[in-house]
Amino acid sequence: MEREVNKNERFVTQITPKSEDFSKWYVEIIRRAELADYAPIKGMMVIRPYGYAIWENIQYLLDKRIKDTGHSNAYFPLFIPESFLEKETEHLEGFAPEVAWVTQGGKEELEERLAVRPTSEAIIGNMYAKWIKSWRDLPVLINQWANIVRWEKVTRPFLRTTEFLWQEGHTVHETLEEAEKETLMILSLYKEFVESELAIPVVSGSKTERERFAGASETYAIEALMSDGKALQMGTSHNLGQHFSKVFNIRFEDKNQNLQYAWQTSWGVSTRLVGALIMSHGDDSGLKLPPQVAPVQIVIVPISIGDWKKNVLPKARDIETQLKQEGLRVEMDDREEFTPGWKFSEWEMKGVPLRIEIGPRDIKENKVLVVRRDTREKESIGLDVLSQKAPEILKNIQRSMFKEGLKFQLENTRKVQSYEDLKSILESKKGFIKAYWCGHTTCEEKIKEETMATIRVVPLEQDKQKAQGKCVCCGKDSDAMVYFAKAY
Amino acid sequence: MEREVNKNERFVTQITPKSEDFSKWYVEIIRRAELADYAPIKGMMVIRPYGYAIWENIQYLLDKRIKDTGHSNAYFPLFIPESFLEKETEHLEGFAPEVAWVTQGGKEELEERLAVRPTSEAIIGNMYAKWIKSWRDLPVLINQWANIVRWEKVTRPFLRTTEFLWQEGHTVHETLEEAEKETLMILSLYKEFVESELAIPVVSGSKTERERFAGASETYAIEALMSDGKALQMGTSHNLGQHFSKVFNIRFEDKNQNLQYAWQTSWGVSTRLVGALIMSHGDDSGLKLPPQVAPVQIVIVPISIGDWKKNVLPKARDIETQLKQEGLRVEMDDREEFTPGWKFSEWEMKGVPLRIEIGPRDIKENKVLVVRRDTREKESIGLDVLSQKAPEILKNIQRSMFKEGLKFQLENTRKVQSYEDLKSILESKKGFIKAYWCGHTTCEEKIKEETMATIRVVPLEQDKQKAQGKCVCCGKDSDAMVYFAKAY
Repeated sequence: MEREVNKNERFVTQITPKSEDFSKWYVEIIRRAELADYAPIKGMMVIRPYGYAIWENIQYLLDKRIKDTGHSNAYFPLFIPESFLEKETEHLEGFAPEVAWVTQGGKEELEERLAVRPTSEAIIGNMYAKWIKSWRDLPVLINQWANIVRWEKVTRPFLRTTEFLWQEGHTVHETLEEAEKETLMILSLYKEFVESELAIPVVSGSKTERERFAGASETYAIEALMSDGKALQMGTSHNLGQHFSKVFNIRFEDKNQNLQYAWQTSWGVSTRLVGALIMSHGDDSGLKLPPQVAPVQIVIVPISIGDWKKNVLPKARDIETQLKQEGLRVEMDDREEFTPGWKFSEWEMKGVPLRIEIGPRDIKENKVLVVRRDTREKESIGLDVLSQKAPEILKNIQRSMFKEGLKFQLENTRKVQSYEDLKSILESKKGFIKAYWCGHTTCEEKIKEETMATIRVVPLEQDKQKAQGKCVCCGKDSDAMVYFAKAY
Repeated sequence: MEREVNKNERFVTQITPKSEDFSKWYVEIIRRAELADYAPIKGMMVIRPYGYAIWENIQYLLDKRIKDTGHSNAYFPLFIPESFLEKETEHLEGFAPEVAWVTQGGKEELEERLAVRPTSEAIIGNMYAKWIKSWRDLPVLINQWANIVRWEKVTRPFLRTTEFLWQEGHTVHETLEEAEKETLMILSLYKEFVESELAIPVVSGSKTERERFAGASETYAIEALMSDGKALQMGTSHNLGQHFSKVFNIRFEDKNQNLQYAWQTSWGVSTRLVGALIMSHGDDSGLKLPPQVAPVQIVIVPISIGDWKKNVLPKARDIETQLKQEGLRVEMDDREEFTPGWKFSEWEMKGVPLRIEIGPRDIKENKVLVVRRDTREKESIGLDVLSQKAPEILKNIQRSMFKEGLKFQLENTRKVQSYEDLKSILESKKGFIKAYWCGHTTCEEKIKEETMATIRVVPLEQDKQKAQGKCVCCGKDSDAMVYFAKAY
């Protein structure tokens, strides 16, 4: 892996403490852990090998879930003719300000501008109209892994970039009920995926009309609290109703030989999830990766004392081989030009969940020192049980990182009755605020204007007993408790 | 999977015989096997789930090899500023006629046009210059899976499309020797991959100066004969020398503290490989897929006689479960609206290597009928040994498809001494022609002009004993036997 730091400088000295400047801390981790770099094009980034390896693990684990629920992958064109976007006014208005336009191909000026896909509903809808004729062709359950371009004004690596990578599912169904079922199934698949693999607890629910995807009849989302108390949208699942099927003429003959417009959904998560990992788990020493998505789960650092290459390294290599046989992702750091201390800092910066230290004395005593990245707990483990214990410790780390996250989320979720409390908490403490809301956009917008907070989700399961109160803004009766937060 | 054929029509009746019109046969297979469809943008295609699943298998098998040889994946921007391409005249001239240009972002006119990447040497070179400082940072071994856009005039699905998917490796080394070693290692990796996984025999060697990649000091390629006798370039590996490192200023401090320009390589294969699978193995009944990359390796068709759902289906499902436990990709075709005959044709069209038929009589006799797609051989196999025998048969199919291919290649490779023979064979028989060539572009161009054939490769290992003859064109002394062919 290439490095751009001065080798003589101590590794972590330059990182800004998280508490001092969260944004600066965030981009410094990205640079120092070599997750990504700024590209020489406005708002674009390069995902470096270490960052991309995290994305590959995310892809692998999510793709399996997408396929296990009956979906297949496909690939649709990068370019969408302008006229396709124009067919759907709402959708166009939502995306037009963000579209990058191709106007020339080779030497020729194009007759019609081509949008570099900001999302693929239009181009996919056009193909579905061709493919779908009868109820027998349904459901269509297709997903695509692709790059997306949105001409963003303000960008930040992984969170909002001109180009990003994502998966977008696009499904077609016979009935509204089926489409709704799919939308909610994906919502809970996303929740389970993010919580169990990324160790990030989320709240889920529907978006308000104001926050809905351009063209959807219902948008659901999962949202997580980052460690600075701001919310981040982690994934969305849209019930598109018949909106696009009417625009693109996706019709099928039903079982009674009647032509019907089909019902659709779309859903996606993106490389933003890598940003969420940094902001949820990281600390002043750098990244902290959940073992499930860590490119390196265990790093072995031989202690370089005396003739370590002869006395320590062979044993360290044995351990490496053993652990790899357990299916673990292991890295051996046998570089000569760095001290063990330097290596410890570097691998902490990279968020490797578990470090194994082995020196001459350990070898004599037939044990190693094992250090957890999340809690920094140290434990001496006998060599005879190491390959059995290491996977267990990784599982514990995964579990305890999620628990930590959940504790943080609960501590930073506050129920509020009055508008005054809402405002004062948002000024001082951030986090989620649970409050009643009457359901009107006017109240939602007033709150946003005065506090910068938005309604992140309306939870699907409201406590029917308790969910009757007064709107925190206008005081009218309400039966919906919602989550407010300042958000990325 | 969605279908667009009329369900009452017999499945295969519409396909044009391969011998009658190869091009028509090719695109009909793509449509009928639902590999891809034309997109509503000039020269672009949609890769449908079945076609994409083949690509996913290719990706999986090749990615493993790329990683096992020490490379990591990363992701670089889709857009390349025009000034970057202009830095390298040769490269720009090679690609400028094929570039799609982004000139507008949102509402604003861009100050500088952005190329949608036609290949990534320029943007990656720019980043490498930033990352590489010292010999300690080398080698850099990075690969990228990405979409590529080239504004092609004449397109054909999978073979040449305005957008395609590929992997592109970009490596940096301390010395020319190391770069050359990498270039050749990848060439042989590609050859081994294509021959063992796609069951397509290839010839490999260097390209002539005329056919070289724009900016490379040496280009190597693997080439295969399609079943119409035309050659297809299957993958290329370029030694870039210091060409791009001088343009993009990629320098490193060597072990003696001298600044040196780095040595680079780049290499790639693309979705064109799916086209190669069709054209190498397909026949008048459709696709014929090698088991290693077939999305479905075995299809089970229960014979629908009498009360088959009660008498046959449960046993068929048992078999499905057993075979899946062996790690095989198995599909059960229990659709009610189609006859077994229809299903047979459909799965033959889709190239599934092995079909298992099971009817009431088979169940009584505790056996099934197994039919190979490649040879159409039928074999009765006892249920007790099926899950042991099926993987063996698949391995045999893989081997025998490669052997068939090799036989075809050898039968269609002809040694030629005179220019007259070269011309007459190219007119009547196609295939590879091995002939001596003096090494001069004038002869190469004369042959191309008069026969449409080009030099596909100059084999690396020339038979030193025999490799002394006269140039087939000018008659001058030559020590290089080369492969000529008409090519896609």
